Parts: sequence; C-alpha cells; structure tokens
Amino acid sequence: MPVRIAVLGAGPGGLFAAVRAARLNAKVTLVEADALGGTCLNRGCIPSKVMREAGALMADCRRFSKFGVRLPGPPEIDMPQLSARRQEVVSAQAKGVARILDKLGIRVVSGRGFIEGPCKLTVTQADGSKQTVQWDRLIIAAGACPRPLPGIPFDGERIISSTNALCLETVPKSLVIAGGGVVGCEFATIFSALGSRVTLVEAMDRLLPLPLIDETCSKTLLREFKKQKITCCLGRIVDSIQETDQGVDVTIRDSPFVQQRQPQPSTGASAEKLLVCIGRTPVLSGMGLENLGVEIDDQGWIKADSRMETSVKNVYAVGDVLGPDKLMLAYVASKEGMTAAENALGEDRQMSYEAVPNVVFTLPEVANVGLTRGQAADAGYAVETETVLFRSLGKPQVTGNITGQAQVVFDTGSEQILGVHIVGPKATDIIPEATLAVKSHATVRDLANTMHGHPTHAEIMEELAAKAIGRAVYG
Amino acid sequence: MPVRIAVLGAGPGGLFAAVRAARLNAKVTLVEADALGGTCLNRGCIPSKVMREAGALMADCRRFSKFGVRLPGPPEIDMPQLSARRQEVVSAQAKGVARILDKLGIRVVSGRGFIEGPCKLTVTQADGSKQTVQWDRLIIAAGACPRPLPGIPFDGERIISSTNALCLETVPKSLVIAGGGVVGCEFATIFSALGSRVTLVEAMDRLLPLPLIDETCSKTLLREFKKQKITCCLGRIVDSIQETDQGVDVTIRDSPFVQQRQPQPSTGASAEKLLVCIGRTPVLSGMGLENLGVEIDDQGWIKADSRMETSVKNVYAVGDVLGPDKLMLAYVASKEGMTAAENALGEDRQMSYEAVPNVVFTLPEVANVGLTRGQAADAGYAVETETVLFRSLGKPQVTGNITGQAQVVFDTGSEQILGVHIVGPKATDIIPEATLAVKSHATVRDLANTMHGHPTHAEIMEELAAKAIGRAVYG
Repeated sequence: MPVRIAVLGAGPGGLFAAVRAARLNAKVTLVEADALGGTCLNRGCIPSKVMREAGALMADCRRFSKFGVRLPGPPEIDMPQLSARRQEVVSAQAKGVARILDKLGIRVVSGRGFIEGPCKLTVTQADGSKQTVQWDRLIIAAGACPRPLPGIPFDGERIISSTNALCLETVPKSLVIAGGGVVGCEFATIFSALGSRVTLVEAMDRLLPLPLIDETCSKTLLREFKKQKITCCLGRIVDSIQETDQGVDVTIRDSPFVQQRQPQPSTGASAEKLLVCIGRTPVLSGMGLENLGVEIDDQGWIKADSRMETSVKNVYAVGDVLGPDKLMLAYVASKEGMTAAENALGEDRQMSYEAVPNVVFTLPEVANVGLTRGQAADAGYAVETETVLFRSLGKPQVTGNITGQAQVVFDTGSEQILGVHIVGPKATDIIPEATLAVKSHATVRDLANTMHGHPTHAEIMEELAAKAIGRAVYG
Repeated sequence: MPVRIAVLGAGPGGLFAAVRAARLNAKVTLVEADALGGTCLNRGCIPSKVMREAGALMADCRRFSKFGVRLPGPPEIDMPQLSARRQEVVSAQAKGVARILDKLGIRVVSGRGFIEGPCKLTVTQADGSKQTVQWDRLIIAAGACPRPLPGIPFDGERIISSTNALCLETVPKSLVIAGGGVVGCEFATIFSALGSRVTLVEAMDRLLPLPLIDETCSKTLLREFKKQKITCCLGRIVDSIQETDQGVDVTIRDSPFVQQRQPQPSTGASAEKLLVCIGRTPVLSGMGLENLGVEIDDQGWIKADSRMETSVKNVYAVGDVLGPDKLMLAYVASKEGMTAAENALGEDRQMSYEAVPNVVFTLPEVANVGLTRGQAADAGYAVETETVLFRSLGKPQVTGNITGQAQVVFDTGSEQILGVHIVGPKATDIIPEATLAVKSHATVRDLANTMHGHPTHAEIMEELAAKAIGRAVYG
C-alpha cells in the first residue's frame, strides 16, 4: 500500500511537496480552494513581474535616444493589453502545473480543507458538496494573505492590497504605498514607471529594512527613487484615511518604531488609491488545526522543526504558514516542500536556510546573499569589506546604466566570502554566482582566480575579489 | 634600483601587465603606437557592445506591444548619434585608463617600438622622432589585426574589416559577412537588428565552430538567425568578388574545409559591403623580435610557456600575440598580463586556462564554459548530460524571450560539473555561476542545493542540477 499524503495548498511549497511525494511513489491528494500555483503564480512573483516588465520597458525608452534609436513619440501604456499579457502568462504556467500533476497521478481536490482529526480531512467544494480525504501524512502549505493597516480594511477600490494592485484596469494618477519592504518598493517602481505619482511611506528609517539587506543598498535605492520622483517618507506611517470623491486623503505621521531625531508634524497626501504592503497574515483559522493540536506561535504562524515537521508527528508545514522568521519566499517554500515530502516518506533531511539569496526587482535591482558586515561582526568574524562601483566597469558604461555598487563581506583570516550586497544593473543576475560562493564557502582568492567574460556586469565580482586580495588593477 | 619593465602594446594584456608591475614597484614604460586600450577598447569588445546595445534596443521594440507598451511608430536608427555614443563610451574608458597609468607613474611612450637587442628598445614617434627605452624585462603585448580573405585586401569601403564596421556612417542596406565565428555572428546580429539584409558565410558546417562551443548552441543560433531573416550559408566560402556601382558582387562556393554531402554550385550575392571576419593575423614584423631570437611558431605567433615567458629569458608575451591556441580573449590577456608582470618581478605564477568562459553577444546570447560532451568523453570521464529549456521556466515566460536551452555536462561517478553550454536569454549573465562551479570542481548536487531567486533566468542552473541528481520537480 502506498503512503497516502494530503497536501493543503497548491502554492510553491505545496506543489513541490506534492510532486516530490508522487515521484517517491506516494498516493497524493492536493487540496486547494483557489487556483493552482498559490500567491506566487496568481497574486505575487509572476504577475508582478509581467507588470514590472512593462514598467521596465517604459523606463528603458529614456535610454533609446542616447543610442541613436529614435522613437516617433513617447510610449503609452495600454492597460487592457498588459492585463491580457499577465493573464496569458499566468494561465500558461497554471496549465503547465496541471499537466505535471495529471501526469504524476496527483489527485487535485478543489475546495477548502478542514482537518477533522488524525488521518481525515473534509473538503468543502464551491458548490457546497463535501468530500473526505484520508491521509497518513499531512503537509500544510496554506500560505498567507496581505495584512491590512489596523482599522483600515481593504475595500479593493480605494484601499487596495498587492492582489488588487495586480488587477487594476487603469494606471492610477497617484498612489500612496504604505510599506517600503520588497513588495512596496517593487510596486513603487512599477507604478512610477507606468506613470503614477507615487508616495512611499515606510515605518522604519530606510527602504527595504530587512536584516539581510545591507544599509548601503537601501541608501542607493532611496537616492534613485528620489531621482525617479518617488516621494519617500521614511520613519513615517499612515495614520488615518479619509475617502474622497477622487480617492483617498491619507494622513502620515511619525512612526513609533524608530527613534525620531526631531518629531515632524503630520502631513497629508491625496491619492487615487492607497496600496497597503505592510506584510502578510496567516489564513489558518477555520482549518481545524486545533483538532490535531498543531502548535502555533503567538503571531499565529505554525511552528515546525528543521525537518519541517510540526509539533504533531506526521504533520508537516511549509511555506508562508511558518511566518517571516522562515523567510516568506517562493523558492524557500519549494525547498521546504521537497524536504517535507522526503521526510514524510521516510528519508531524514534537514532544511537548510544557509545562503538564501534575496532578489528585489526594483529599478535599480537589489540583490543580497549571506551576512551583512554587522551580522558577520556579531557572529565573531574578523570582518573586512570591499566595494566596487558599477560605473568603474565597461559594460555599465556601454549600456549607460551605471548606478550602484557591489560589496563583498569576508573574513580577513580565512578569506571566506560571508556575504555579497548588490544594488545596480543586473543585481539579480549577478547574485547567483555570489550565492554559490557563499554556499560553498569559497574564498575571495577563489573568486579572484575565476575568469569572467568581458564586458559583463559579473566582472564586478572579480573586481571585488581582486580588491580584497590586493590584486585589483583598476580599483 | 627598481626593475625596469617595458611593455609593448596597451591592450588589456599590456595594460594589466603594466599596472600590475607598477603596483609591484617596477619602473614601467608602456609603448603604444595607437590609442590606449588596444583592440578591446578601440576596435573590439567595447565599441561593438555599444552598437549591439542599439541593435538590441531596436529588436526589443518588437516585444513592447505584447506588454501594452504602445509606440506611436517603429523606431529608426540615427547612425551619427550612435557613433557619438560609441566615441563617448570609448573615450571615457580611455581617460579612465590614462588616469590610472598617470597615478601609478607609468611612463607612456606613443609610437612604434623596435627591439634593438637585449635591454634596449627604440620608439619611433608619429613625428618621426626617436626615443630610447632601456629595460630589464620586456613584455610583448602587441596584439593582432583582422585577417583579410586571400587575394581580397580590405579597402575600407566595399571590403571591410571589423574595425571599419564599427565606424560606418550609415547602415548598409545589405551586407555579406565572411566568417560565422564569434565576431561574424555578433555583427550579423547587430546589422540585422539595425535593418541590414545580412548573408552570413561560414566555411565550417556550423555557426560558432569553436571547440569549446557545443553543437546544440550552434543549431539553436542557426534556427534563430533564420527567423531573423539572416541568410546563413554553412560549409561555404567567399570565392571571389566583383566590385559594382552599388557595392560588391560576391561569389560563394563550397568550402574545402568540410566534407560536402552533395556538392553545391557556386551562388552569387550582391551587397553594399563585404565584412570579413575570418580571424586575426599577427602584427609582429618590423618589431625586431629577431634581434632577441624570440621563437615564433609556423603561423607567426609568439611561443610562451605557462609562466608567459618566451624562449628568451626575461622576455614575456601575452594576449593575441600568442595566437588562437591560447584563446584570443581580452580577459584571458588580462590574466596573462598579470601573470607575466608577477613572474617578471620574481614571483613564480602559472597561467591557468581552466574554466575560461566564452560569451557571445548574439540574439539570443551564447555562453559556454568547460568541456563539451565530446571533449569530456575523450578525456575519459563517464559523461552524462542534462538539458533544460528556457521555456519551462517562469522568468522567460514572463519576458517572452523563451528560446534556447542550457546543458550541463557532468561525470556520472563523482557528479562533478565538467561543462555548461547555454544559448538563450541572459546566457552571458548565467555563465559566471557555471564558471565558478566548473572552476571550483563543484558537483551537480552542490548546485542543486544552492538556492536561486524566483523568478530568475538563473533558475535554469538549479533545474539542470536537480535533473542530474534525479530531484527535478518540473523536469
């Protein structure tokens, strides 16, 4: 008898778990109330990148005349066509996913799952009919959803979430974005490039205030956002709103989360819409977790060990249900899903969160891996850093995208590369090499001895490493 | 007394040698008849990439409407503006080089160097005046120049070299390119994108017929060139030409270098210009090499050992003067230059040609590192390969650039990565990670366990590796 595995949720974590389990010959049932692919495919990574591509193309047109490429007039955005493209990409991906599930004999049950108790789930389908699923191992991958501002619920019209923002039928003339994390900054880039007047409000004192993102990246991004006429309010929060005929009047005040050097008065901003990107919230209530006794932390996220098992034997959890401490990233969820499936089927694998790259598709891009200088010092390393500006390299000079820099954090004694922090052209394309370097404990000397094609943006890695070992030529 | 080092030629090899030697406290004289930066900066990598950028922008416009980015009409190319951009980029780089040389106290002597004998050079300057340079160590980095077709000399008008092609004042309506190697293929991409009708003639039976480029890359590029309406004549050579009022009539016949399945008759092609990209030729005559007795091979290239020393003690040679066996690449020359300088100053360094990446800026791009399947089998490995198509990944689906694939060549027993061969979007950006993997003897398992941001093109590396170890999810 094959092991029966039920997977709750068909985002990256759930899909990878289901597919891996099926390949290991389990009998897999995948339960999903919504579309296959979860947030990543339907409301996150993929559709936002389609919109970002349109924004990037619009922005890129500014570079054309420099190269003698003459456009007869400025580009204009056709939102219905962009929406069609977005839907086309998403549905093609979804069909691909469905084909694989079908090929592997994974049973997909559409509906909301409810855990009745050990070994039993009930799925309520859209038409109200119920179906029972028996399981030997359960993998919970139910995801999370956008969190509203306290007291300001989403209305989908004036007060919108990232999900709504991906489905707008017109480009808002003006937009206030609450939250300058990865999602907020990416939307600021997109809508600013598409023509919106954007005001970005971030409670902390820098953009992208994530522990793994070095402050130098935040600073450069802030400078570039300002050049792009994005108004950035740091150390500030959205206090209250007032709906108007044209949209919403937003009151912005000092944030209680940072020490204010000098308190600033409240200010107002009028906009067509307020886009709230302040994080995500669990969607675990009503799932029957209490019927198993699955332990939850005080924020409402599921606790899991390094094998992805919850407090209940044979019950695993992966992806966004684990909360931000475990990094809410599609590619982390995928690895967690595979780890859970393998452990559920008798293997003994540890999930590794070492060298998880971070990629932010702003203009310019930001990408990071490993430790910041501060984190490395705290961890007891004899830290040194080197920085190289993109403008010192040939390829950025060729393309004209010369903003930004890369920084390597390394240990003076062992020369081991501990972290790399990039803001600039192709940052998200350069970080994979840095990730392999950090993951494989390569040294700056190894990297300096690795050849890089010329002219390429990746030469910045070799320059960094050469500087670090005192063999820089142009540095 | 500091060691006196004379460097002949200010291309990447000569510049890196000079700068490295100066940083090691030598007294350096750099002799160059032409502009600082050599072929790479003045007649190769850099100016060609400026033109390529214009071509890529023109080609990219075809993608705009898909994303709802509406242009009021098709783009047009303004060649004087493109030329100005090219000159601006080159001169900014040249100024940067001059600043560094100046800062390091490197004496630059403009003129043609002639080796009088041990320890003495004479430099003839443009005005005919002569200057003597005394040296303890000599580094020859004189480069190479475009090779004409036998019996068909360059005239700079109808019969042009890559150097001429970079300075055209108008886009030729039609162009025959002799030679489908890296330079020929890059120019085919550039001029086709700028609007020329291009016929590409390659003597071997594939495009990019380099040992380190896998045949699958050649095949995909051929298919894409055909889609771009570039006429490709493989296994064919330019036999003769006839000048006409409009340009040149070219006679094309079967190549003697490949076995013809069925001999084809000669054909004709009329074009505004014939661009000859069949390789490079040494420029060593008249340099006085014979006064030192520096050994030269039967093709006229200088012989050097793995320390970059020639047959004559204290005389080193780097870069294109070593000929195609040592890879005529700017970044190889740079490393050779550093190696030569360090050895000239008493260190003992071996030049490594291991894991030299190859990057081709065609549309789509081609990039390779390490061994092909055939080379790995010949070297005695138990070879396996895996291939992943770009169309199976999210990011290419988002951008719409879905052509191409990546292939990993690895050893079945040790799982060591031996080579990676990519044709497709961002191939030249993906190859650095593969290069580090090959250089550091990483395994496919190491790579499969390295996280990659989503959605990115680099995910193809993780998919390849996951397939190789039987952990593929979507493969």
